[in-house]
Amino acid sequence: MNISKRISNMQFSPIRKLTPYAENAKKRGVKVYHLNIGQPDIVTPDTFFEAVNGFNETVLKYANSQGVDVLVESFIKYYKEWDINFDTDEIMITNGGSEAIQFTLMAICDVGDEIIIPEPFYTNYNGFSEAAGVNVVPFITKAEDGFHLPAKEVIVSKITDKTRAILVSNPGNPTGVVYTYEEIRMLADIAKEHNLYIIADEVYREFVYDNLKFTSALYMNDILDRVILIDSISKRYSACGARIGLVASKNKELINQILKLCQSRLCCPTIEQLAAANLINTPKSYFDEVKNEYESRRNIMFEGLSNIPGVICKKPTGAFYIMAKLPINDADDFAKWMLTDFSFENKTVMFAPAEGFYASEELGKNEIRLSYCLNCDDLKDSMKILAIALEEYIKLGR
Amino acid sequence: MNISKRISNMQFSPIRKLTPYAENAKKRGVKVYHLNIGQPDIVTPDTFFEAVNGFNETVLKYANSQGVDVLVESFIKYYKEWDINFDTDEIMITNGGSEAIQFTLMAICDVGDEIIIPEPFYTNYNGFSEAAGVNVVPFITKAEDGFHLPAKEVIVSKITDKTRAILVSNPGNPTGVVYTYEEIRMLADIAKEHNLYIIADEVYREFVYDNLKFTSALYMNDILDRVILIDSISKRYSACGARIGLVASKNKELINQILKLCQSRLCCPTIEQLAAANLINTPKSYFDEVKNEYESRRNIMFEGLSNIPGVICKKPTGAFYIMAKLPINDADDFAKWMLTDFSFENKTVMFAPAEGFYASEELGKNEIRLSYCLNCDDLKDSMKILAIALEEYIKLGR
Ligand SMILES: Cc1ncc(COP(=O)(O)O)c(C=O)c1O
Ligand SMILES: Cc1ncc(COP(=O)(O)O)c(C=O)c1O
Repeated sequence: MNISKRISNMQFSPIRKLTPYAENAKKRGVKVYHLNIGQPDIVTPDTFFEAVNGFNETVLKYANSQGVDVLVESFIKYYKEWDINFDTDEIMITNGGSEAIQFTLMAICDVGDEIIIPEPFYTNYNGFSEAAGVNVVPFITKAEDGFHLPAKEVIVSKITDKTRAILVSNPGNPTGVVYTYEEIRMLADIAKEHNLYIIADEVYREFVYDNLKFTSALYMNDILDRVILIDSISKRYSACGARIGLVASKNKELINQILKLCQSRLCCPTIEQLAAANLINTPKSYFDEVKNEYESRRNIMFEGLSNIPGVICKKPTGAFYIMAKLPINDADDFAKWMLTDFSFENKTVMFAPAEGFYASEELGKNEIRLSYCLNCDDLKDSMKILAIALEEYIKLGR
Repeated sequence: MNISKRISNMQFSPIRKLTPYAENAKKRGVKVYHLNIGQPDIVTPDTFFEAVNGFNETVLKYANSQGVDVLVESFIKYYKEWDINFDTDEIMITNGGSEAIQFTLMAICDVGDEIIIPEPFYTNYNGFSEAAGVNVVPFITKAEDGFHLPAKEVIVSKITDKTRAILVSNPGNPTGVVYTYEEIRMLADIAKEHNLYIIADEVYREFVYDNLKFTSALYMNDILDRVILIDSISKRYSACGARIGLVASKNKELINQILKLCQSRLCCPTIEQLAAANLINTPKSYFDEVKNEYESRRNIMFEGLSNIPGVICKKPTGAFYIMAKLPINDADDFAKWMLTDFSFENKTVMFAPAEGFYASEELGKNEIRLSYCLNCDDLKDSMKILAIALEEYIKLGR
C-alpha cells in the first residue's frame, strides 16, 4: 500500500531512537540517568492543578478555535511584564509550541519554499518542514563560538527567491545559546532587507543565566509585522503534558489566516486551557527558584564536562542543554554502547547524539547534547559516570 | 508580507461564520436556539472527571508520542465489544479525530494526490486536504436517496492514477446516513480492485437508530490492510473538549510511519489521556440512555420538519444531524435573516447553510443542516419557530 514520499522522508525522533536500549538496560537492573530529553523534573505550579480540579462544568465542550478568552488575556498580561504588547486578535492558542510551528510554516510557505535555520537546531523543525513540504536551509554555528551567529554575509548567502523566513530558537535548543541584542538586530535587518519573516521560538525565554538580558525579536519595533512568535507553557511552567502553546504576531492578517487552521482542528483541550490561564497567578518566586536551580545545574554539568580530558564545550547561558564535542568519532555508537555494554556501579547515562540536530550531512558526529533536567546530585553522579565511560570507550578503540 | 497559497485557499469555517450575527441577536435580547453545531449537551460521564481529579503527579510530564498505554489498552477493549481486534502497535492516539484525519492524509498522500469523498461531507475534510495539498474529488449523494451511496460506476468513474483513498463518515455528518453492509462491501471491492485505502471516519458509531446494525469498514476482512480508522471520544462520550481521538489500522507499517508525525508534535495532553482511559468504565446504561435520547430528538426534529410545507428530507438513521431541502433559493441568506431580522416571541433558530458541506459549486444552496443537540422541549419550540420563520421569509420574496 502507498506510503507518501513526505512521510517516508521524515525521520523517527533521533532523541527517542535509543529508548529501546535504555529500556533493556533498565530490565537488566541498570539505573539510567536521562540526560537525553528536555523533560523538566521541576514541579508544575499548584495554580495549574487547582484550576484543573476547579473545573465544574458537567459537559466538557469544545472551546472556541482561537483559544479561551481568559487564557489569551493571561498571555497578554504575561507579555506586558516583558514589555511586549499584544492585542487579543494577535494570538492563537495552539497544541503546544509544536502546533504553533506547524501552523506558521503552513501559513507562510507553499510547497518548495525555504526556511533558513542556524544548525544545530531543534530536530522537530525538520519534521514539521518535511510534513509541510518546506525545505530547511541550514547555516552552521559552532561549539567554539558558543553557537553564536556567524557574520551577516553567511546568513544572507543562504537567501534565495524561495526563502520565506529565518527560524531561530532563542534561548537555543540544543545549544543553550542566548543571542545578544546585536545578533537579533542583525536578523531584523536581514528580514527587512530581504523581505523575510522571523520565526522567533522563545519557549525558553525564562531560562537565561549569568544576569544576561534576554532580547526578544519583538523588541525590534521596525519589523513587528515580520515577527512570528512561537511560545509554550511546557518549559516555562514545567507543564509539558498540558500541550498549551501559542503563535502570536503583530501582523493581524497573518494571525487571522492562521485562524483557519485553528478552526479546522476545532480547538485545544478545554480544561488545560483554563488551567494554563491560572498559571499567571503563580508567584514570581517560582521563576526565581527555578532559574537558580537550573543555573546551579548548568554549573555542575559544565564543570563536570570541562574536567573530562578532550571534551570541548563553551559554557551555555540559556535553556537547559549543553552541546559537547567528545574526543571520539561516532557519538551515536558511544551513546548506544553506554546503554548496551557499559555500566558503573550499575548505573549509566543516556544522552542525545548530536547528529540528529544537524541538517548538513557529516556534522555533529562527535558531538552530544545533554540536558540538565535532573537534580544536582544526580547530575554530579552522571558526569562522573560519563568521564569513566568515555575513558573506557576510548581504550576500546572503537 | 507573504501568505501561502494553501492558506489563502482555505475557507473560514462555514459553520462558525454566522456567529457574529448570533452574538448580535443575543445582545438585542433574542434567545438563539443553536442547531448549527455538533456540540452535544449530554453530560460527560463521571468516569472522565473522576480520573481528571485523581491525577496526582506533581510534574505534568510529556506522555509518550503514541499515547499512554492504559488509553491504548482501553480502546482495544472497547473495540473488542464491536468485534474489532487491534494490537497495541496498530493504534496512535491523536488530538481528536481531527488530527487523525490530518495525519492520515499526510501519510498516504503527496501533494497533488486525490481523495474521493461523497458529498455533502464534513467541511473540515476540505481544510485538512487543502493544508496537505491533497485534492478532494467529490461524488454526489442526494437528499432524495437519504444520502446513500450511488451505483459503483459513479464512484469508480472518479478514480485516477492520483487517487489514494475513499474517505467516508459513517454514520454521516452532515447527512445522518448509516451505510448498509452492501454499501460498505461495495467500497471494499472498489478499494481492492483499484488499490485504494478506505479512510473510515466512524466517530458517530454509537449513534445508530431504529435498531439498525452498524457496519464498520473493519468488518471487511479481506481488505484490512487498506482500512484506516478515524475515531474520537468527542461525540461518543460527549467529551469534545478533551481532544482525544485516534488513528488505527491493521496495516502496521502505515501506523508505524504515522508515529513519525506523532513524535514531531511530541504527545497528546497527559491528563486528558488518563481521563479518557477511564471512560471504558462508564456503565453500559450510559450509551443506552444517550441513544434513546437522541432517537427521540431525531423523531421530534424530523416530524417538525416534515410538517413544514415544501421541506424535503428523509428520516436519517444516525449521528445527530438532519439535512433538509427548503422551498427557497438561498439558505445562506435565510440563515442570516433569521439572526438579523426575525424573531418570534423573542426567540430564533440558528442552523448551518449546507453550501459549505459541498465541494461542487452551486450544490446545497437551498439546503440546511440542523443538529439535534438540544433537549426535546427546545427542539419542539425550534421547529415551531422555523416553520413560522420560513413562511414569513417566503412571503418576503427575497
Ligand atoms: C526549541 C523548542 N521549540 C518548541 C518546542 C515544543 O514544545 P511544546 O510543543 O511542548 O510546546 C520544544 C520542545 O522541546 C523546543 O525545544
Ligand atoms: C465526521 C467527523 N469527523 C471528525 C470530527 C472531529 O472531531 P474531534 O476532533 O472532536 O474528534 C467531527 C467533529 O465534528 C466529525 O463530525
